[in-house]
Amino acid sequence: MSNDLVVFGVGGLPEIVAKDPLANMIVDAVQSSGRELLAGDVLVVTQKVVSKAEGRVVKIDPDDVDAKRLLAESESVRVLRRRGDLVITETKHGFICANSGVDLSNVEQGYAVLLPIDPDRSARGIRDAIERRLDVRVGVIVSDTFGRVWRRGVTDIALGTAGIAAVVDLRGERDALGRELVATEICVADEITAAADLVMGKADGVPVAVVRGVNPAWLRESSVKEEIVRRSQEDLFR
Amino acid sequence: MSNDLVVFGVGGLPEIVAKDPLANMIVDAVQSSGRELLAGDVLVVTQKVVSKAEGRVVKIDPDDVDAKRLLAESESVRVLRRRGDLVITETKHGFICANSGVDLSNVEQGYAVLLPIDPDRSARGIRDAIERRLDVRVGVIVSDTFGRVWRRGVTDIALGTAGIAAVVDLRGERDALGRELVATEICVADEITAAADLVMGKADGVPVAVVRGVNPAWLRESSVKEEIVRRSQEDLFR
Repeated sequence: MSNDLVVFGVGGLPEIVAKDPLANMIVDAVQSSGRELLAGDVLVVTQKVVSKAEGRVVKIDPDDVDAKRLLAESESVRVLRRRGDLVITETKHGFICANSGVDLSNVEQGYAVLLPIDPDRSARGIRDAIERRLDVRVGVIVSDTFGRVWRRGVTDIALGTAGIAAVVDLRGERDALGRELVATEICVADEITAAADLVMGKADGVPVAVVRGVNPAWLRESSVKEEIVRRSQEDLFR
Repeated sequence: MSNDLVVFGVGGLPEIVAKDPLANMIVDAVQSSGRELLAGDVLVVTQKVVSKAEGRVVKIDPDDVDAKRLLAESESVRVLRRRGDLVITETKHGFICANSGVDLSNVEQGYAVLLPIDPDRSARGIRDAIERRLDVRVGVIVSDTFGRVWRRGVTDIALGTAGIAAVVDLRGERDALGRELVATEICVADEITAAADLVMGKADGVPVAVVRGVNPAWLRESSVKEEIVRRSQEDLFR
């Protein structure tokens, strides 16, 4: 049997602004709560604080009803669908999501938060800074909240990863009855991110969670862009 | 800060066959591993063992290359896309997935496992049987593994729920800066199911996991069919 997985939230961070040393502030918050980061822990950090630390915040006219949509379109390479205020876009990263991930919640009135330019790089930066400070090798996932095509309700997914596999390929393994498993590529990064959201909430100031006890075989260099983003030529629904 | 979430797998179940008392076998397996089920635990049970216990297993000709596809089509109300062997269908339940969920892995050669007829009812049956035996109120999710349209890799999702919310509506709550959150309906059932998959694997005989420590406000009557399955009139991509 596998070991227990433990997930806990990290709160108590101050409001994040551009150029804040986010990784150090996360470590401080973990330690202030009486915890330690251990080798093999995976930290899930919400996009919102990552984008704020990276200065990915722009002014937006709160009286212009079209401002958010226009900003979303400017952050996209393609608009797939429109319905009222909502646009479903393909972002410059290749993510397909509502409003290019442009978000007005949990940010000061009159401002909008954009996605990080390169979320894999953001994750690596946090991972490297934690390792420099603590000499502990962790995984880091930068998360965001996306809707799904055919299922109601949003879930948190991985925008960027470092030190934790995005997709694990079980092809070639055998099932419990000895038959070879065909084409079972599990998106463990999205599953870890979903687990983290269960201790975060959307409103309560817990922008980081630690997932402890993931399969050590999954701790490797990785990339959401390379492993998860589906290329349009293998896409049946664009 | 929220409490810790703990996730552990439950292995050691025998091969499940039709009419097996699955809930009792799960409780036995939990107790054999030296654990107890506690009020508020959420059990995630893979569809495969639920379907087997419900007799949702049919013979299939292993030499007929079209047999799986034809069976998938017969379990569907509509075929959305075809590519080679793969069909993306809408099942009688309203799920949109590969091959109507028809699965040849982890089942004896020459047989295929179909989805439960009513996975919410399956979850309620397991939940009720556990409560009768232990006098402990748990949540139950019947899970399956689905692909996603624009992201590579599969993740586990909820087919049916009992005693644990499928979707939690945060509309009306306020974000950390006091702005009202708009339209934040979180699919906690899918997030709990994803967390459970992290201790299950696909091949190693762990068909059940326990997720302990979810928000007690989420413990209520629920339905994947009513809360998660998107009605086609609100669907931008069918």
